[in-house]
Amino acid sequence: MITTEQLDAALRTALETAGRGYRGANPLVGACVLDAEGNIIATGFHLGAGHPHAEVDALRRLGKMSPAKARELTMVVTLEPCNHTGRTGPCARAIAEAGIGQVHYAVPDNTAASGGADYLRSQGIQATQLECSDAARNLNQRWFIAKAEGRPFITVKIAQSLDGRINAPDGTSKWITSEASRNHAHGLRSRVDAIMVGTNTAVIDDPRLTARTPTGELHERQPFRLVMGERELPNDLALMQGDDWEQILTRDVHEAIVRANELGFGHLLVEGGATVASAFIAADLADEIYCYQAPLMIGAGSSSVNMPSTSTLSEARRFRLDSASRESLTRLGDDIALHLEPLPRG
Amino acid sequence: MITTEQLDAALRTALETAGRGYRGANPLVGACVLDAEGNIIATGFHLGAGHPHAEVDALRRLGKMSPAKARELTMVVTLEPCNHTGRTGPCARAIAEAGIGQVHYAVPDNTAASGGADYLRSQGIQATQLECSDAARNLNQRWFIAKAEGRPFITVKIAQSLDGRINAPDGTSKWITSEASRNHAHGLRSRVDAIMVGTNTAVIDDPRLTARTPTGELHERQPFRLVMGERELPNDLALMQGDDWEQILTRDVHEAIVRANELGFGHLLVEGGATVASAFIAADLADEIYCYQAPLMIGAGSSSVNMPSTSTLSEARRFRLDSASRESLTRLGDDIALHLEPLPRG
Repeated sequence: MITTEQLDAALRTALETAGRGYRGANPLVGACVLDAEGNIIATGFHLGAGHPHAEVDALRRLGKMSPAKARELTMVVTLEPCNHTGRTGPCARAIAEAGIGQVHYAVPDNTAASGGADYLRSQGIQATQLECSDAARNLNQRWFIAKAEGRPFITVKIAQSLDGRINAPDGTSKWITSEASRNHAHGLRSRVDAIMVGTNTAVIDDPRLTARTPTGELHERQPFRLVMGERELPNDLALMQGDDWEQILTRDVHEAIVRANELGFGHLLVEGGATVASAFIAADLADEIYCYQAPLMIGAGSSSVNMPSTSTLSEARRFRLDSASRESLTRLGDDIALHLEPLPRG
Repeated sequence: MITTEQLDAALRTALETAGRGYRGANPLVGACVLDAEGNIIATGFHLGAGHPHAEVDALRRLGKMSPAKARELTMVVTLEPCNHTGRTGPCARAIAEAGIGQVHYAVPDNTAASGGADYLRSQGIQATQLECSDAARNLNQRWFIAKAEGRPFITVKIAQSLDGRINAPDGTSKWITSEASRNHAHGLRSRVDAIMVGTNTAVIDDPRLTARTPTGELHERQPFRLVMGERELPNDLALMQGDDWEQILTRDVHEAIVRANELGFGHLLVEGGATVASAFIAADLADEIYCYQAPLMIGAGSSSVNMPSTSTLSEARRFRLDSASRESLTRLGDDIALHLEPLPRG
């Protein structure tokens, strides 16, 4: 018989395990499998879109066993198992096929993937929602907001000096941040569906916006390139290599997101420049921020975040170090990197 | 017989131990005591001005022993033992009185406290400079520079938002940083000889500039208050409580330092505002920086560091996380705190 304390402990472990994944088009999810005495015998997590879901990951780590043994097992998962065939098969079916006896989940799934608990029950598996689900809901609070607003999960990248500058008065900025930070940012690019930059950044910096390995090779998965803004673009920009790019003729972030949705993107990375990044932050559309700080003080030049409408401190946007991430405050070469999430809204 | 490898290892341990102290009027120093087989049997460090030196700290941790036993011991210390009676007695004499047989030190002392090695030799103790002293010299590179320039060691404090702002356009700034950051900054105040602020900060913020405990009581040791600038001060400022304050009628940081020297201050804390702090950074007079970052983006308002003469990126001032400190990158409540040292000069 598994006690309430053991379920609570399993949920805490599942929440911690969830933090090993990356935020993005899918929510962070963690799972634990308990034996009949309530000992945790396997954990699993969802690394990100295209990877196995947490439940399937935990089942894989568990290995094969007899149906009688499996029937004694309990799974604790931070989110209701999905009932949806996307890039991976539905988790509810995988759990039923593994023969797990009971499932406890923290947060019900109200998205298109819902119905997992009902499916499990139809297969004779006890599926129960845990009572204390606040932490599990908070884990993905911004993902739920993005879903509720019918838009992609949005990551904003900022690369600045310690004093919040992105260049010197003459425009020099290459490279403010370290090689380790740039490699980290390329990892980000390799996980998103699309990158967005402003027209000025596209023209002035002329970036390729490809996701490259530290040795300069292309990652297997490449982001779509979106350029936002009304400025006319020359025809020979580096980002125009291949067909996977588009200019969105607007300065309005909400209009830009509508188009990103039409194109089917679940995870958008806003790389800048400062005007575009600031517009997303000001509109409360930054679901997470990676802020790379190079260890220098420039003392002049452009600021990383500009919100001209701010007049008093209470209008500032507030964040916290990502509470799920194990690397929310790290060193990247000589730089420091902050992984931030917006504070929950009132 | 102690091997070269054991001496190297002991020096590394002494360097690490040195990092447990605070930078300031005195250099960071660490010491190890080795037995006849080369095992480290005690370590010591110098916490800061007014506290026992590293050698004395190590001897205290060692405890009492017979002269014959003491004679077999070797001390490894990152800096030549002092021969100077300041707030504490000379270390060279303490080592001789403890009856230690041999001393190896990394960096010779060329200050007014020099002569320790000669004194030890005069007492029949082998005193030898270690060959590889670069790391020990780097440990205190800014302290040596301050000494060579005949000026106090200077700590600059910066409290800002993530985007490098110190207030919103309407001037609101109270409190940008967390209670934990403010408590940390009061600890800093309690260790320095004097705090410097600009006249505008003195008038607009009207700070007391006292060092207070988290419960609001005064620390035993209080800093002298220096106000720098030519603006005339009203007679009722909070910092004018008691006699330990002075206005220095200049906008020139070098002139301000001359006066701080005349007043006998070995450790100066520059608290701001941004103009004064920036002037010290621009003049390469910030020997260390504590940068507190509150987790918000303001997007407008004053910047934390302003160096109007910067035109291109190569003119930026470069730092690194303090390599000796165990807490060079930490969380303070919801804030993050960076303890920075300037990169060694060419």
